[in-house]
Amino acid sequence: MSLFQGIRYFLLADNNKNKTLQLILGFYPKNQLLYEQAFRHKSVANEQVDESIESNERLEFLGDAILGAIIAEYVFIKFPYKDEGFLTKLRSKMVSRSFLNQLAVDIGLDTFIETSPNVNRSNSINGDAFEALIGAIYLDKGYDASKKFVVEKIIKDFIDIKKLIKEESNYKSKLIEWAQSEKLEHQFDTTLIDQTKIKYFKCELKLNNTLITIGEGSSKKKAEQAAAKKFFAQKSHD
Amino acid sequence: MSLFQGIRYFLLADNNKNKTLQLILGFYPKNQLLYEQAFRHKSVANEQVDESIESNERLEFLGDAILGAIIAEYVFIKFPYKDEGFLTKLRSKMVSRSFLNQLAVDIGLDTFIETSPNVNRSNSINGDAFEALIGAIYLDKGYDASKKFVVEKIIKDFIDIKKLIKEESNYKSKLIEWAQSEKLEHQFDTTLIDQTKIKYFKCELKLNNTLITIGEGSSKKKAEQAAAKKFFAQKSHD
Repeated sequence: MSLFQGIRYFLLADNNKNKTLQLILGFYPKNQLLYEQAFRHKSVANEQVDESIESNERLEFLGDAILGAIIAEYVFIKFPYKDEGFLTKLRSKMVSRSFLNQLAVDIGLDTFIETSPNVNRSNSINGDAFEALIGAIYLDKGYDASKKFVVEKIIKDFIDIKKLIKEESNYKSKLIEWAQSEKLEHQFDTTLIDQTKIKYFKCELKLNNTLITIGEGSSKKKAEQAAAKKFFAQKSHD
Repeated sequence: MSLFQGIRYFLLADNNKNKTLQLILGFYPKNQLLYEQAFRHKSVANEQVDESIESNERLEFLGDAILGAIIAEYVFIKFPYKDEGFLTKLRSKMVSRSFLNQLAVDIGLDTFIETSPNVNRSNSINGDAFEALIGAIYLDKGYDASKKFVVEKIIKDFIDIKKLIKEESNYKSKLIEWAQSEKLEHQFDTTLIDQTKIKYFKCELKLNNTLITIGEGSSKKKAEQAAAKKFFAQKSHD
C-alpha cells in the first residue's frame, strides 16, 4: 500500500496534483505554499538544508483546534435538543485519531503526503495531514471557508452521522463484534496479577501535619505528583 | 464570598448589569437572551417550569471549543519559531480549568452568574460561565468578534504570557514553592501499599489463540476494556 501510494504520488505531474487538490477543496488555493507544508511529513522537512522548509506539525496543531471548533458548532446546531454529554461524545468520535486517519484516506489525501522513502506510512500520518490541511485552509481562507469545507465537502459526503451515533464505545463489545465479522476466535483471559510482583505506592501529602490529599501510583514519584496535583485541583474548585 | 456575590448580583439593577456587561465585552450584545443563558447555572434552569429556559451547559460545550481554536491561533501566530510541543503546552495552560476559573473572577464575571441559593458557588462555576460566554459571543457575533474579545479584552489585559510560559508543570515542585510562600510545613509521606490489599487484573486478548494485547486494571472489566482499547489503537496506527 505505501509503495503504491508513493508511486501514485510521483506519477502525478504538479499540474495534475493542483487540479486534484482543487477538486478535493472545492476552491482555488491562494497561498499554495501552505498546502505544500500541510502535506510535508517531518521526515521530509528534516532532510532539507533550508531551515525555512517546515514540516506540517505546527499546522496540525492549529488545524486540530480549528476542526474541533467547527465540529463542536456543527453538532451544537444539528442537535438543538441534545445535552452537552451527547454533543461531547459525538464530537469526540468525529475527531478521534482513527476516524480522521480513515477520513483522510477516503478523500484521497494520502496521495498528496510527502514522506522520506524509509518512513513507514502509518495511518496516523494521514490523519495528521488532514488536520494540517484544515490549518492551511484556515490561514489561507479564514474560519468561514474552513467551516464550509468541513461541512460541505467532508461531513456531507464522507461522514455517516447516524452510524457514528450508534457506534459502540464499549471496546470489549466492539472487539467481539469485529472479531465475529472477521471470523476470528477471540478470548479474554483475565487473571488476578500475582500480588507479590506489583509495586504500588501511596503518598500522603500533609501541610502543617494535617493530611490534605492522598495520591497513588506505580512509583514513588507518580504517587507524589498525584497527591500534589489533587491538592491544586481541589484548591481551584474551592 | 458566595453570599457577598449573591448580594452584589441582586443589588445591581438590570440596566446597570447590562452596562457592566457591555463594558466587559467591549460591544453591544445583539441577542441578550444568549448572554442570560451563558450566566444561568443548571441549578437555576432546573427550577424553572418553562422547559425552554436552558442552562449554560450547551453554550459551555460550544465556547470551550471556540476558545480552544482562538487560543491555538493566538499562540501559533505569536510564536512563529516554536514547535508544536511548546504551543500545545502553553495553550493547555491558558485553557486549564483552574486558569479559567481565576480569569472569570478577574474580569468580574462571577457577579453575573445565577445559581439557586443552596448551591455552593465553587470556582469551577465561574470558569464554566466564562466558556459559555464565549459560546454566546460566537453565536451572537461570529468567530472574528469572539477572537477580538478574547485577544483584546482578555489576553491583553488579564493574561501574563511570560509568567505562564515559565510556570512549573511539575506539581511536586509547585506545591513545595507554594507551601514555602504560604509559610506552611509540607511533608510527602510515601509508602509501599500493603500488597495483600490490592487487587489488580491482567487481561490477555487473544485472536485465534495468538496473544494480541495485554490490558491491566483494578477490576476485571477495566483490564478487558484496556486490552480491547489497546488493540483498536494499534490497529488505527497500522
